[in-house]
Parts: sequence; structure tokens; C-alpha cells
Amino acid sequence: MPSLAVVGAGAVGLSVAWRASRAGWSVTVHDPEPMRGASWVAGGMLAPLTEGWPGQTDALELGLASLALWPEFAARLGCPLMTRGTVVVGVDAADAAELDVLAGWLDGHGREVARLTRRELRAAEPSLAQGFRAALDVPGDWAVDNRALLAALSTGVSVVAEQVHDLGALAADQVVVCAGAASGALVPDLPVRPVKGEILRLRVRPGALPPPARTVRGVVHGRHVYLVPRPGGLVVGATTREVGVDREVTVGGVRDLVADAEAVLPAVAEYGVVSVDAGLRPGTPDDLPLIGRLDDRTVLATGHGRNGLLLAPLTAEAVLAELAGTPRDDVACARPGRFT
Amino acid sequence: MPSLAVVGAGAVGLSVAWRASRAGWSVTVHDPEPMRGASWVAGGMLAPLTEGWPGQTDALELGLASLALWPEFAARLGCPLMTRGTVVVGVDAADAAELDVLAGWLDGHGREVARLTRRELRAAEPSLAQGFRAALDVPGDWAVDNRALLAALSTGVSVVAEQVHDLGALAADQVVVCAGAASGALVPDLPVRPVKGEILRLRVRPGALPPPARTVRGVVHGRHVYLVPRPGGLVVGATTREVGVDREVTVGGVRDLVADAEAVLPAVAEYGVVSVDAGLRPGTPDDLPLIGRLDDRTVLATGHGRNGLLLAPLTAEAVLAELAGTPRDDVACARPGRFT
Repeated sequence: MPSLAVVGAGAVGLSVAWRASRAGWSVTVHDPEPMRGASWVAGGMLAPLTEGWPGQTDALELGLASLALWPEFAARLGCPLMTRGTVVVGVDAADAAELDVLAGWLDGHGREVARLTRRELRAAEPSLAQGFRAALDVPGDWAVDNRALLAALSTGVSVVAEQVHDLGALAADQVVVCAGAASGALVPDLPVRPVKGEILRLRVRPGALPPPARTVRGVVHGRHVYLVPRPGGLVVGATTREVGVDREVTVGGVRDLVADAEAVLPAVAEYGVVSVDAGLRPGTPDDLPLIGRLDDRTVLATGHGRNGLLLAPLTAEAVLAELAGTPRDDVACARPGRFT
Repeated sequence: MPSLAVVGAGAVGLSVAWRASRAGWSVTVHDPEPMRGASWVAGGMLAPLTEGWPGQTDALELGLASLALWPEFAARLGCPLMTRGTVVVGVDAADAAELDVLAGWLDGHGREVARLTRRELRAAEPSLAQGFRAALDVPGDWAVDNRALLAALSTGVSVVAEQVHDLGALAADQVVVCAGAASGALVPDLPVRPVKGEILRLRVRPGALPPPARTVRGVVHGRHVYLVPRPGGLVVGATTREVGVDREVTVGGVRDLVADAEAVLPAVAEYGVVSVDAGLRPGTPDDLPLIGRLDDRTVLATGHGRNGLLLAPLTAEAVLAELAGTPRDDVACARPGRFT
């Protein structure tokens, strides 16, 4: 049985490990803090559409290709998807203009997007604030409980809780680097940088208005916030800070998240605080991941930025194809060689 | 050796236990969550002066009597006091009027209080915001690291981590009830109620302006906030909510603390969030504690409200005097019988 070392026990690494195990590889996953990186901190959106923006067609197509794999992926893992879609709201006129750009671009790509009147928004999500300048319904974007996913993916996988400093020291026939923001320390000159994000996990307290049924994204005076419902709770994210390796939640980050969440869902003030966390997204210069072969023994699957969960099933398929010597064309835009 | 059961491992209970052990009692402390109640959550202010208000002369005198015991108490425990005093700032005209009332009342009681000009405030505490309508320097109010105090007090004390449901079941010659907000469940008809408070513990991040050298209390558009410095950090408290037994931090509580702290110390936005906690102060109808004998076997030492840490050394002395059959006159205002 050929052996595979996967470096990184996040959504991408564990998906690769899970998929490779089913394909007959003997897999070991290495991570100093298994399942506690960006995938753990994340909100769990699977949102190629509302993450989209003019000019980012490659990202849209990658995301849609992976989203198409999600229903079967989630079903096999016993991890239910939240498929009621996503609502996007804009607070002021400039925020509304941003929604117009997004809606026009999605229309142009033939994706379903509906402009909601205030009355329609109120009917769809009665607990939201009133008076938004614009609202969209994007039924094609979903969400998943990322922590439940990590738990499901890790079942039966061999995980070694140690830091890998040297890929050459790993005793395996093939190595896949899925170390997210830490990948740059393992592979010289890799164009992956940490992009800090802060996030709140909240509990709905008795008597408080319930959270929305759908994921809600808000553009609040130019700043972005998302609210992802969970059973009995809500995840509110996320700040975006280019501050290097820094996993400490700041007072200012919490302040901004709370202010923007309250602008979208006033009842959030009455919710309980379960945790505040920060994570490091693995950013790349063109906001596309790095998926493909680096050398005879090493495959890269990193740099997924905000979209590691969304892209995990497609990335796992692409890595398996690469290991089999038959690279997939549909991830060609993510080839690592594009920067050299 | 006579035996003593102390119910409650907070600042008051542990102080009683520590003092009684030194007086020759065999002491056992009972608490389902030792050292994790209101004393743990607290900010650590020892502030009879800036907690004062016209009409609350008994509370002032109790507090000053206990504060006078603190230097020796702290020295014996190896727990340093922060004795640079307290600065009080008021943001708007009504807040300034509140400071005037406080200053006039302290003046009238012969306590040292100085009105600071903006220039003087800036010289004393340069990292504070500018433009306050009023500022006071109250050198007589101090602070202590409450968690270090609890650790010091618990050294060598026998603590049983179990809930006491029935005082009669305790195998001890005498029993002291120091169970704070939980005391009402142990003693029928005790006029003690929980008063929820939320608090933030912060870390000063590299590059951020340092915290103030003194404790700073702010009156911010009628709301009270305090900032208590710690080595490398800052404690920001506290909300006050009459919501029964509820130890969950709310989004709105965090929002208010952060907003008010930023109004006093703008740099706080750059600090890191170490923890957010909520605790239950033991409130009484007249805001004075309940210290004294309940029956032949039971002494009460509870209901200390916001002032459990401040009043711990005096309370311990008063309980020991009660156990010795020689009640102290200087805690007469706290006698439990006053409500019956």
C-alpha cells in the first residue's frame, strides 16, 4: 500500500486524507494543533456566489465546481448542509451600489439572484433590522457546520500532533502540503501569507429573537459582516487584517463585529458570547489557491484564503488525480507554477 | 482543636478560613467551584471613596476600616497593593456634575480629593482620552490583583469542591456562610440577591499605548466603567444587571464595556482580549453586608455586593470576634438582624 503524509489537519488536509484513504493510500496527517486552525475558527460558508466579484471568474468557477461536490461529500460524512441560501443586505447607498454590482455580475453569469423589497425581506427574515437600502436573495450559496465537518473528517484518520519542520524527514512515498497559512514555512518562496480574521460564536438566549434562517451577509458602511446560523446559535465574522502571524483577538475587532452584526440583526445584543477566536487564512497574490504538483514527491494544496471549506472536496479530488498522474483541467487556474 | 466549616471559597470565605486557621481553628472550606465566583471575576478595586455617595456613610466607614487593614493583610499574603490611587473622569456635563457631588461629599468627610485640570490629568495619565469635562484624583483608593490574592489565601487551606445543600449536614462545631450570591439557597429568607456583572480582561499588545498607572473610573454619559491596570494588561468592568442567576456574558454587555472603555482610553481598541467573564455579586436591600451571628452554630459573612475584596480583612476579623463571643461594634451596621 503506498503511503501518504498530509501536512495540515484542517478542512483541506483532512479531506485529502479521507479521500486518499478510500483510494487505498496509507495516510498519516501531521499538525501541531490538529483541527484548530482556520477551518476551526471559520464560519462555515460555502459561498462562491456572494464571495464573487467582477474579474474573479476563475474563483467563481472553482467554487461552483467544488460546491457541486458538496451534497454527496456532506452526505457521506453525515454532516448536513444548510441549503436555504444566503441573503445579502446593504445599509447605505454605497453599500446598495455594491450589491448592484454583485447582482449584475451574478446575472451575467446566469446565476440566480433576486432583489428583495423591504416587505419581501421582512417576510423572509423577520428578525433582521429594517430600513436596508438594498437586499438580495442568493439561493445558491450554502453553509455547513465547520466544526462538525472536521470531527466527521477526522474519524478513523491517523493524526500525529507534531510540527513538521522538514518535508524530507517524513517517511512517506508522497507528501501533500495542506498547512494553510503555515505552508510558507515548509516550502521556500511559496506565495502564501497569513490574513488574520476574528470571529464570534454566540448562543441565542431564552427570550431573544431567533437568528435568521439563512446565512446573512451585510455590507455596513463599506465593511463586510456575515451571520451564519447554527442550532441555538449564531456565528458572526469576520475581520480581515494583514498583520502577519497574529492569532490574538483584539478589542477593536470585537467592537467592529458587534457593531456591524447589530446593524444587521439588532437582537444579537441579547445573545450570549460563547467564544471569540482569531485565525489565519492562507492568502495568495491572486486570491486563488495553490493546487498541484511541486516536485516528484510533493503536491501542494494550500492558499485557499477565505474558501478552504468550500474548496475542500474539489481540492481532494484534484490532489488524488495528481497523485494518480492525471491532473484535472478544472483546477488549472490554481497550478502553483503560475507565479514562477 | 475546635472545627470550623466555611461555606464559600471566595475572597471573604478564604479570608475567614485563613484568619481562623491562624487563630487555632481546624478549618474546612466548601465550594462547588472554589475561587471561581465573584471574587475571581472581579476587577480588584479597594475603593471605599470612589464607590461612595451621599447617604452611604456606613458603607464608607466600613470600607475605610477594612482598607486600613489591607496593607498588613496584603503584606502577610505577599500580594502587593497598587497604591497610586484612583482617577475619576466625567465625559459630559451631567457626568461632571456627578463628580462634583462625589468630590463634595468626600471633602465633607475630610477625605483627600483633588480636582484635576486637563493639563494635570494629561501629565498624570497621558494615555487617557482628552476633552473630559471633569477629572478627580482620589489617592486613598487602591487596587489588588484579586486572582493573585485568591491564590495566596488558598495556600494551605483545606478546600472541598462540593456543593453544600444543608448546613446541618456539615460536621463542624461552627459554620460560617460566605457563599455570596448563593447564600440565599442555604439560609431561608436571607435578603441576598444576585447582581450580574460582566468584565473584560485584556492584554497590552506590542506597540499599543500603555494602560494608565492608576485605576481609572469613568462616568460616560451616565454609565460607569472602571479600568484597573495589571502587569501587561488591563481589567475593564463592569456591567450591572438585575437578571437573577445568569452567568453568561452577553454581546450587549461586551459592546457597552468596550464603548465606555474606549471613551476613557482610546488605545484599548488595540489591546488583546484575554477573557470575558460574568459573575454574580451578592446584593442586599441597603447595600451593606450581612456580618454576624445567625444562631448558636452559624455566623453569616455575605452580601458584600461590589465590595467583597475590600471588606474581606475586616469581615474576617469580625467573624473571628463573633466566634470568640466578642462581636465588634465597628460592624454593627452590618448585623443580619436589621432586616427582621
